[in-house]
Amino acid sequence: MIFCDIGNTNAHLLKDGHLYIKSINEFLNLSFDEKVYYICVNDNLKSFLDENKNFFDLKPYMYFDTKYKGMGIDRICACKAVDDGVVVDAGSAITVDIMENGIHAGGYILPGLTAYEAAYALISSRLKLDINKDVKLDVMPKNTRDAISYAAIKSIKLIIENSAENKKIYFCGGDGKYLAGFFKNAIYDQMLIFKVLKETFDALKSSQKGKIC
Amino acid sequence: MIFCDIGNTNAHLLKDGHLYIKSINEFLNLSFDEKVYYICVNDNLKSFLDENKNFFDLKPYMYFDTKYKGMGIDRICACKAVDDGVVVDAGSAITVDIMENGIHAGGYILPGLTAYEAAYALISSRLKLDINKDVKLDVMPKNTRDAISYAAIKSIKLIIENSAENKKIYFCGGDGKYLAGFFKNAIYDQMLIFKVLKETFDALKSSQKGKIC
Repeated sequence: MIFCDIGNTNAHLLKDGHLYIKSINEFLNLSFDEKVYYICVNDNLKSFLDENKNFFDLKPYMYFDTKYKGMGIDRICACKAVDDGVVVDAGSAITVDIMENGIHAGGYILPGLTAYEAAYALISSRLKLDINKDVKLDVMPKNTRDAISYAAIKSIKLIIENSAENKKIYFCGGDGKYLAGFFKNAIYDQMLIFKVLKETFDALKSSQKGKIC
Repeated sequence: MIFCDIGNTNAHLLKDGHLYIKSINEFLNLSFDEKVYYICVNDNLKSFLDENKNFFDLKPYMYFDTKYKGMGIDRICACKAVDDGVVVDAGSAITVDIMENGIHAGGYILPGLTAYEAAYALISSRLKLDINKDVKLDVMPKNTRDAISYAAIKSIKLIIENSAENKKIYFCGGDGKYLAGFFKNAIYDQMLIFKVLKETFDALKSSQKGKIC
């Protein structure tokens, strides 16, 4: 069996304790002989998933207490893994959510680092540059590449810091490990979402609801 | 005579004390019978400006002391208008620069609000939304539009606040007035760049350098 978290850019697959990251195109060309328990935020894959008998959507079996309207199922999963703290899923977008005593207090969505690069490139060809992840955040930049890198990374850091105060910050997603490096009170856990997928599967299996096995 | 600041999205024209904002397309369709003293960061307009005898580039007559490599001439002009403080030009991009005793200490470049919207739209059609400029920055968002609006605006606010400490903040550009509203120590001055264009013109005229008149 495989657990799978399907995003807009990549699909993350967990099989036998190993995590595999595939682009959506790579993912669509894989063949699956075993059952895949998934969540998906990518609307383009609906028919592919619906038509494949091996795919089982765990979303209908997730309960989450929030007043937030329109929260993606990946974000819900990451939040369900944390009782108290800030939950940061840093992928194509960077979602930041506040959990207090198991209750979701709201959250916000920053562009991911690649989306910042795309935004700069759209403004001017002079800003079509890769973000320098080694840029110093305590020195004012003196060139264009550092100027965009400092702005993107430091503004992300400051808003997360502002939300966190003294709370623990749980990072997951492709840039989660990198961003976690900026915070003392950070925990990077690439299994955050998968823990909840597995818990949901286990609960469903034991309750015998749905054709899970 | 006209003073003109040509950007990537719009051209700002000052004539007889009145400011006119034209999209680049509108600007290219104007006819000019009088002399236009300009600065331009838009590489696409080079041949148009070079071929038009009425256009006079003020850039070669601007001196600016900085270690920063590749600073746009509009940014240089805005900085030259300020001796001490933070200079924010909020247009297609939001440039933020630090001036200390007339010397440029460096700066950085955030995406402009429209560029944030474009970045979100590229990530997912679910994020293709207008930024809500009235979003509350002291309450955690509870829906997608507020989530992207809060993230973009608050991250911009926090990084400018972090750079400013107790310095005055001078805003110009299309979103300058809006962003200035978030700061106590803010001054919005849409003439910031034009003051420097006029000073440069006056100095050039009095020194009789170049065929200025």
